[in-house]
Amino acid sequence: MSLPDEPFMRRALELAARGLYTTTPNPRVGCVIVRDGKIIAEGWHERAGEPHAEVHALRAAGELARGATAYVTLEPCSHHGRTPPCADALIAAGVARVVAAMQDPNPQVAGNGLARLAAAGIAVESGLLEAEARELNIGFVSRMTRDRPWLRIKTGCSLDGRTALPNGQSQWITSPESRADVQKLRARSCAMLTGIGTVLADDPQLTVRDFAIGRQPLRVVLDSRLRMPPSAKLLQTPGVLVVCAEENAARRTALEAAGAEVMCLPVNGRVDLMALLLELGRRGCNEVTVEAGAELAGAFARAGLVDEWVIYQAPVLIGDPAKGVANLGLASLTEKLCPTRVEKEAVGPDLKWALRFGMEE
Amino acid sequence: MSLPDEPFMRRALELAARGLYTTTPNPRVGCVIVRDGKIIAEGWHERAGEPHAEVHALRAAGELARGATAYVTLEPCSHHGRTPPCADALIAAGVARVVAAMQDPNPQVAGNGLARLAAAGIAVESGLLEAEARELNIGFVSRMTRDRPWLRIKTGCSLDGRTALPNGQSQWITSPESRADVQKLRARSCAMLTGIGTVLADDPQLTVRDFAIGRQPLRVVLDSRLRMPPSAKLLQTPGVLVVCAEENAARRTALEAAGAEVMCLPVNGRVDLMALLLELGRRGCNEVTVEAGAELAGAFARAGLVDEWVIYQAPVLIGDPAKGVANLGLASLTEKLCPTRVEKEAVGPDLKWALRFGMEE
Repeated sequence: MSLPDEPFMRRALELAARGLYTTTPNPRVGCVIVRDGKIIAEGWHERAGEPHAEVHALRAAGELARGATAYVTLEPCSHHGRTPPCADALIAAGVARVVAAMQDPNPQVAGNGLARLAAAGIAVESGLLEAEARELNIGFVSRMTRDRPWLRIKTGCSLDGRTALPNGQSQWITSPESRADVQKLRARSCAMLTGIGTVLADDPQLTVRDFAIGRQPLRVVLDSRLRMPPSAKLLQTPGVLVVCAEENAARRTALEAAGAEVMCLPVNGRVDLMALLLELGRRGCNEVTVEAGAELAGAFARAGLVDEWVIYQAPVLIGDPAKGVANLGLASLTEKLCPTRVEKEAVGPDLKWALRFGMEE
Repeated sequence: MSLPDEPFMRRALELAARGLYTTTPNPRVGCVIVRDGKIIAEGWHERAGEPHAEVHALRAAGELARGATAYVTLEPCSHHGRTPPCADALIAAGVARVVAAMQDPNPQVAGNGLARLAAAGIAVESGLLEAEARELNIGFVSRMTRDRPWLRIKTGCSLDGRTALPNGQSQWITSPESRADVQKLRARSCAMLTGIGTVLADDPQLTVRDFAIGRQPLRVVLDSRLRMPPSAKLLQTPGVLVVCAEENAARRTALEAAGAEVMCLPVNGRVDLMALLLELGRRGCNEVTVEAGAELAGAFARAGLVDEWVIYQAPVLIGDPAKGVANLGLASLTEKLCPTRVEKEAVGPDLKWALRFGMEE
């Protein structure tokens, strides 16, 4: 691939990112069509069931697509889903060359779309700005390759890692700017996940409030003994899954009457975290964000299930005996959690850390 | 003051900083002498009892000082100390103009040196790069204006504010780069201060090892009940003060035999922290750095005695039930410690936070 391709793929990635909050369970995909070094059409996927990025772009290009180059952030699909295969649409439009940022991450279909294009005589390339493209669909990639969502923990804490006083007081340690940024994490998540302890202490809604995105993430509560009160604010918005480890017909009925779905996924008296993630994967969840206390965050971490930890850290000290970020119960410092990647960004007066664990190539 | 003065004062500050590790209990001072827009001589104070910065510079300038401008980072002294007054030396040398970065911070002498120069017909100005000059001598300023040292706490911890496992294991959470940086903090400190808990758990030396500075900071151990073992590594280097809250003749004798000085400063069964700081002030300590656990750090914080908190934060998670940075025992989040100034700097893989509390003008 020649250097001149890159700006067009960057533009396609920009377009794809417009679907950050809406494409679930589909990936975010953008497409630009270029002729004589100029973009003649653009498209991006907005919502499942609606046309894919390529179709939008081809429609905009019309007859001009013939002989043009299409840049797509993900390998065009080759199967009939809710819409016809994009590979066929590109062939029909007479596109001469297709540059994809990455192959379809589903190992069972990866390459099929590109092969179909190549078989039709189209020049095909893949891998341009692949890291950026994978990043944009990190959750979709996770679900396709591991059958489970990308698991992100979000924590707001002080410089000394405190999230709440022993009495539960936690409002507000971080800044309004950080809380606004959390809304973005929620908006890009397919599901928000918390524990019954947080529900009982904070009665959160875990909804997206700052953006009108036409959907709310599934809200999942880990509640081994079904202690969740049917009056919980979470239940004011439809789409709540309560996961227990112990059946209780009366409480289940009450929660179902309040609109919750109840599911029992026990292992050793607790909720089976891996089984839950696989269930969320089956439901098409790409990105799951956990907003919970030290116990649940620690349980995911001890189980090795955390892919990303986003920590909003306010430059204040709260000290003992306030609550910590995670209960890890280390026996030795050699067991400490060491991220494979660390990024820092100022958010208002706070520092936003984005830690990654594993899964990186 | 005209803009052209500034580079000369910057140079004087650079020279002054050469004394960072050695001038105690004196301030760090630099001086440049300028004629026709060119530096003709430089000087800086290296060690108490040796010539002041002005004297070094005047000696280097010789007869050329006549009619020249002297830039000094601190008002020239007007009293006979271990050396004759620098104001007199400047007058005798025939300097035409003196620019000082700041007045002597001792409120009882502030301005006397400059007044003496002015009375001799020398043009006198003060306040150029004053903030930088104060910063360089933050401990000296503290001792002159508050009769006590600048109190800095140094903490090494994880991203979630953990300093050690419950079993005391703490080596190593932060990076070699951070530990090397800590050596600089020790080298600029007049005294290092820790608690008996840290001595019993870690048996530290708290000495300067990376720099040959010809002195070691006084090492102070807060040890209410004189539990310090005479075999403690701290006692291998002379200059240890053990401060108790309860006399114990046998233990005092044993510690004194091991080379320690023992002092009893009780208040309500504990060591009187303010009395200790005033005592350290009387001994000429400008900067005191605390390397201690959550209890002692928290005690200084709760007493409102912390001027600066330097935190080396490694991008790892350690979690509960590991030890925290400080026991603050907050009853409400409104009581959280909010610094008046926050600075961040990357040190190797770690993040170094420098928090300031109060005393800033």
